[in-house]
Amino acid sequence: MQLGSKIIEQAVEAFAQLPGVGKKTALRYALHLIKNDEHYAELLQQSIIRLKTELKFCSKCHNVSEQEVCDICLNPVRDQATVCVVQDYRDILAIENTGLYKGLYHVLGGLISPLEGIGPQNLNVETLVLKCGSGGITEVILALNGTMEGETTAFYVFKRLAGFSLKMSTIARGIAVGEELEYTDEVTLGRSITNRIPFSG
Amino acid sequence: MQLGSKIIEQAVEAFAQLPGVGKKTALRYALHLIKNDEHYAELLQQSIIRLKTELKFCSKCHNVSEQEVCDICLNPVRDQATVCVVQDYRDILAIENTGLYKGLYHVLGGLISPLEGIGPQNLNVETLVLKCGSGGITEVILALNGTMEGETTAFYVFKRLAGFSLKMSTIARGIAVGEELEYTDEVTLGRSITNRIPFSG
Repeated sequence: MQLGSKIIEQAVEAFAQLPGVGKKTALRYALHLIKNDEHYAELLQQSIIRLKTELKFCSKCHNVSEQEVCDICLNPVRDQATVCVVQDYRDILAIENTGLYKGLYHVLGGLISPLEGIGPQNLNVETLVLKCGSGGITEVILALNGTMEGETTAFYVFKRLAGFSLKMSTIARGIAVGEELEYTDEVTLGRSITNRIPFSG
Repeated sequence: MQLGSKIIEQAVEAFAQLPGVGKKTALRYALHLIKNDEHYAELLQQSIIRLKTELKFCSKCHNVSEQEVCDICLNPVRDQATVCVVQDYRDILAIENTGLYKGLYHVLGGLISPLEGIGPQNLNVETLVLKCGSGGITEVILALNGTMEGETTAFYVFKRLAGFSLKMSTIARGIAVGEELEYTDEVTLGRSITNRIPFSG
């Protein structure tokens, strides 16, 4: 794509590095900025600076945070003995939105994926091991994706924590609420039968 | 969506104003920035500033340009008597990529769309009328979308320029190269029969 302007080319290059954004979409974004008033460009630009300068990662759970320790870790009402292991911040948002979990979190920062060159050493596993080893934690819940990468990572974390006396669980796999049996894949359906739960009305 | 951080909320608000970007995608962009190194945030931020401070609109054809007058208008090799009327800069890129047009352009900056509150007064029509009225232009090609808005705008521009002795045309509507007749909509097929062209092998 010949853009005829170095400035637009640079902007397209930059936007195209965002996840899921190709050159055409990047160009659309750049033109949107050109067409809109100064104010919007200023807002976007300031937001980007603030993301990099004012946000930190929680020193306890690696959650994104505005302070040294995040609000969840600081909250005395939350169950300090239960840790839910997740891939990233978005999963914390999703679980928090259910309103059904009151423990703490531990953010791995990714999943083991040999294809993408991500090994256990790239994830926040050591701090989890240290946390579990130092006592106080009684339960660890693995809440990772139902993908190959998620299962591999769950298995790895499980192995690493096997030495401690912890109650360990993984979130249930099964058919979704509102989903029809007929259209459920056989692996999921098989697991939902194997891991059937007592009927509670 | 509860984000738990004012900084992330502000960034999501800003990204979600880009065309076609919802809150979930905006959050993905924000997290990408948080995870990546300083360098990328710097690059994106600088690109945005440059888009707003260093880019202008060509004073002759309203094309996006780094100088007062754009490269196309300044090019002495191009046919100064032919003007191709387009919606925006992306259409110029598309036509330039064909390598088949050697005249000048005129960017309207949008299409008439009552639903979006865009009327003729919001488009660069007056400067086109002035340009055609001042002589030197012998042909105007309307290269607008095949949508309702495109056709309406083409008709409006045609009416406004009707008083001048100009050769006026619109780009051909018809079946695309490689397209099958069977799957072509009837309006397009009808037009391609009405506007049939001499067979040239």
